[in-house]
Amino acid sequence: MSGYRTIHGDRVHFGWDNSLAPALTVAPGEEVEFEVVDASGGQLSQGSGTEDVGRLDFGRVNPVTGPVYVEGAEPGDSLVVEILGLEGSGWGWSAIIPGFGLLAEDFPDPFLHISHYEGNHVDVTPEVRLPLRPFPGTIGAAPAEPGLHPVVPPREVGGNMDIRDLVAGTRLYLPVRVPGALFSVGDTHAAQGDGEVCGTAVETAMRVRLRFGLERATAQRFPRFVLAGAPGPQVAEKGYQVTTGIGPDLMLAAKDAVRGMIDLLDREYHVEPPLAYVLCSVAADLKISEVVDAPNWVVSAYLPRAIFR
Amino acid sequence: MSGYRTIHGDRVHFGWDNSLAPALTVAPGEEVEFEVVDASGGQLSQGSGTEDVGRLDFGRVNPVTGPVYVEGAEPGDSLVVEILGLEGSGWGWSAIIPGFGLLAEDFPDPFLHISHYEGNHVDVTPEVRLPLRPFPGTIGAAPAEPGLHPVVPPREVGGNMDIRDLVAGTRLYLPVRVPGALFSVGDTHAAQGDGEVCGTAVETAMRVRLRFGLERATAQRFPRFVLAGAPGPQVAEKGYQVTTGIGPDLMLAAKDAVRGMIDLLDREYHVEPPLAYVLCSVAADLKISEVVDAPNWVVSAYLPRAIFR
Repeated sequence: MSGYRTIHGDRVHFGWDNSLAPALTVAPGEEVEFEVVDASGGQLSQGSGTEDVGRLDFGRVNPVTGPVYVEGAEPGDSLVVEILGLEGSGWGWSAIIPGFGLLAEDFPDPFLHISHYEGNHVDVTPEVRLPLRPFPGTIGAAPAEPGLHPVVPPREVGGNMDIRDLVAGTRLYLPVRVPGALFSVGDTHAAQGDGEVCGTAVETAMRVRLRFGLERATAQRFPRFVLAGAPGPQVAEKGYQVTTGIGPDLMLAAKDAVRGMIDLLDREYHVEPPLAYVLCSVAADLKISEVVDAPNWVVSAYLPRAIFR
Repeated sequence: MSGYRTIHGDRVHFGWDNSLAPALTVAPGEEVEFEVVDASGGQLSQGSGTEDVGRLDFGRVNPVTGPVYVEGAEPGDSLVVEILGLEGSGWGWSAIIPGFGLLAEDFPDPFLHISHYEGNHVDVTPEVRLPLRPFPGTIGAAPAEPGLHPVVPPREVGGNMDIRDLVAGTRLYLPVRVPGALFSVGDTHAAQGDGEVCGTAVETAMRVRLRFGLERATAQRFPRFVLAGAPGPQVAEKGYQVTTGIGPDLMLAAKDAVRGMIDLLDREYHVEPPLAYVLCSVAADLKISEVVDAPNWVVSAYLPRAIFR
């Protein structure tokens, strides 16, 4: 039995608003397929180049498909979202957008890179291949506060969390803040590292299959999830290059760790800094190695060596 | 050929000081075995209890063994430290120390827990078993600045970094800031998660085997390393519980993620909060899921479910 309904890619909205009319109403236990538009809202194509980044209409970026009204969901409940599967278009884009990203001050110029994927891998360049690990970057429910809330920042109800382990097989728990939860999904990614440091992943249109459930009166505060297997990227055969940043500010330590990796990619792998920054975003993981040895914390950036063919 | 020399556990110092006399001088390529005393400096034993945490003499904690003078090392070089092996005492302690740790405000009372390890695992409780993944929490070189520098904060020359992937097989690169580098090691851990959130790991005395090398004029800024295999903890067979914290401050997001995990451990696994906090410190990993969706960042705490037997 494949009893699911589809929400097509024309049922998108921009930002979160708990007064939006549902695109679909479902009962707990139902499956839904969402057609997710890429984060540019279809403004970029496989033929796009760096010059198209400057032409983006930011009023049309970050569409999300929905909302879905889940029958019986009430504030204080948890919406349980089982991620059943994702199927993509076969190509994706990664951009440096001026003013956006962890190292915005180091990279003032726009940059665009197109990747292709099939089977179980993403070909970023002829030399760089990543595991295909698709997930929705934006997945969430409507906030309690009335009005239109921008889509870029994530919130306690989820949204643009860009958690790269929300892959098929994951069970996500979202706090419900309004009747019906008003769930939407968007911003599908073919691959991304923890941090999404340049601000974009391998951005791609996908079909996403989800099943909805409810848990009552959990008083959950932030999103949580149960991951079925190991965290990504699961590329261990050649080990990892790891750079660190150390200091009293986690944000600056994260920047220094990524700067160290960009330098290393330039020096040892001959990858130019803009592409190296994109590689960090799609393939390197930011970990907080220690956050207790006052006053200095350590953030580390981990890059799997096997991505270089 | 096992041509290595040993620095015994009585050759310790407290804090970093580039005027200290070397305990040993080695040539690049040489191996050294270090007897590392536990972070309490031997003040805690297998029979210790929570009341002993309050009696700790903090003037005697965090000893490091060394320093080693590496012939030819000059400021601007990189000291290459190959971590060859660690062998431990079979038991370790984990403590909540008032005023110390990520959630110091939530846990004002001292707490002590003793774990045992053998083979490839650490038994924290009869119900909780972790992989044994020994590493030195403190590993570094002397800073350029004269005088005595406290051992708790890590620096650009390394030190108390508590990076739990500095396991056997790892090659660590440390910036050299003084002639000879003046390398020391201490604070060995049998297991720890990324973050070391309660401020202590499974703290244990160990013998550490290292080999030294040099790279010239690298102008390295922060420590980096090459990890031979996958990052820890490599416990994937039952998946992961993941909690998040979301907001404009990475530190607060990290606290919220850990608070979420402590709540989950209490509610679903019936682990009391002080032990849950220790479990987060020794087994949960803090990842920066996204650090670009301004103004809110996501920090996630990952706990492998298979640690529960």
